[in-house]
Amino acid sequence: MVTEGTFESRPLDALNSARNKRVIVELKNNKQFVGKLKAFDIHVNVVLDEAEERADGETKRKLGSVFLRGDMIVMISTE
Amino acid sequence: MVTEGTFESRPLDALNSARNKRVIVELKNNKQFVGKLKAFDIHVNVVLDEAEERADGETKRKLGSVFLRGDMIVMISTE
Amino acid sequence: MVTEGTFESRPLDALNSARNKRVIVELKNNKQFVGKLKAFDIHVNVVLDEAEERADGETKRKLGSVFLRGDMIVMISTE
Amino acid sequence: MVTEGTFESRPLDALNSARNKRVIVELKNNKQFVGKLKAFDIHVNVVLDEAEERADGETKRKLGSVFLRGDMIVMISTE
Amino acid sequence: MVTEGTFESRPLDALNSARNKRVIVELKNNKQFVGKLKAFDIHVNVVLDEAEERADGETKRKLGSVFLRGDMIVMISTE
Amino acid sequence: MVTEGTFESRPLDALNSARNKRVIVELKNNKQFVGKLKAFDIHVNVVLDEAEERADGETKRKLGSVFLRGDMIVMISTE
Amino acid sequence: MVTEGTFESRPLDALNSARNKRVIVELKNNKQFVGKLKAFDIHVNVVLDEAEERADGETKRKLGSVFLRGDMIVMISTE
Repeated sequence: MVTEGTFESRPLDALNSARNKRVIVELKNNKQFVGKLKAFDIHVNVVLDEAEERADGETKRKLGSVFLRGDMIVMISTE
Repeated sequence: MVTEGTFESRPLDALNSARNKRVIVELKNNKQFVGKLKAFDIHVNVVLDEAEERADGETKRKLGSVFLRGDMIVMISTE
Repeated sequence: MVTEGTFESRPLDALNSARNKRVIVELKNNKQFVGKLKAFDIHVNVVLDEAEERADGETKRKLGSVFLRGDMIVMISTE
Repeated sequence: MVTEGTFESRPLDALNSARNKRVIVELKNNKQFVGKLKAFDIHVNVVLDEAEERADGETKRKLGSVFLRGDMIVMISTE
Repeated sequence: MVTEGTFESRPLDALNSARNKRVIVELKNNKQFVGKLKAFDIHVNVVLDEAEERADGETKRKLGSVFLRGDMIVMISTE
Repeated sequence: MVTEGTFESRPLDALNSARNKRVIVELKNNKQFVGKLKAFDIHVNVVLDEAEERADGETKRKLGSVFLRGDMIVMISTE
Repeated sequence: MVTEGTFESRPLDALNSARNKRVIVELKNNKQFVGKLKAFDIHVNVVLDEAEERADGETKRKLGSVFLRGDMIVMISTE
């Protein structure tokens, strides 16, 4: 059965362990944002601090704090 | 565990701290709106005051108060 | 915290203040409808009276009363 | 506040006043159906009687009674 | 007010009267299936018996019993 | 009225009768998977055993057991 | 009737048996990720460890631990 009890079994818990670390967020429109993971919720809405948009490994613009809507997110990984 | 208790852990709280400040809102259709963040809800529906639509850093049209539907929003950042 | 108590903080309340005024509604298919805002609901379904479809600032067709489905709506602003 | 009490304030009520009248329904795939509005529900699923599909103002095919799924609907207006 | 009480006012009831009759189902990918309507639910998931896929009025392939997912459906009409 | 009581009236029941039989699953991206239907749920998430991907009637790759997400599914039919 | 009682009948249970094994995850944008399945939830959000992105059978980049949003997922199979 799919238990909801154990800590390591849930994706949002795994995401939680990335809090305050720098993460890469890839969006459905192929944009890539890098920043410190400050907040997220069950919709995978995400707030990054010290964020920047990147393209092909290069910084495209610096953005400070950004809110990214969850339904646009494809992937989140630690940098 | 993903706790819902601490203030800074939720994206909508981070958004709340931008209330009454000028924000940039980027939409899925690549349009960009800039204005004072007056209101938002859990769907990320947003109301901007003194809003304008921008393209390539230039004002395209001035709009007064606008309601933007949440499911169109990609990113919100402070200007 | 995101409070739901104050009047001015919710987008649908802001929309409510536009009731019976002429508004511009932009859709995901880039169509633009102008008319008097008669009704809306939490899905942002909207009814406009004395509506017309516009393209490039010109009236394309007059439509009387129209129902616009919320999930097609990008933006609503007062004319 | 967004009240749900008054009759005229809700889009589905406005739609209800079109019941048994001929309406034009425009879909996301740009198809247009015309017919007598027999039924609709909160998802904006719609049933038209004596329906026909139109393109550029001309009847493309006659269809009798049709069920149109709500999430495909952009606009409903009285003919 | 939108009443939910009368039989003829709900789209799924209208669909119910087509049960065991041959119907045409058009999908968002422009495919067309014809068959005997055996089952449907509130999501408009549909099961057709003695089904066939058609293109331009011609049978493309015969399929026996098919399950069609509701969110792909645009239109259902009796043949 | 749309009754929920009779066995044969519900699409998921029809799907249930295909359990452990070989089925063809067509996806929104036009990919086609064939395999033994081991499991499904109300979202139409599906698990196939002894699965293979097919294109134009030919086996493209053999996959063992696959999980297919329901919202990608267009059609399920018995082989 | 669609019973929810038996272990093997539910897709998420089948997915559970792949936990800690290497899986291939295919996304709607045609990207392919391979890694050890560490976590998933009812939305099919997934966390892979020792993940890599692949294209045409070749490793494109190594990613460590990745969170993949469920609504982007098409298929999950064991490697």
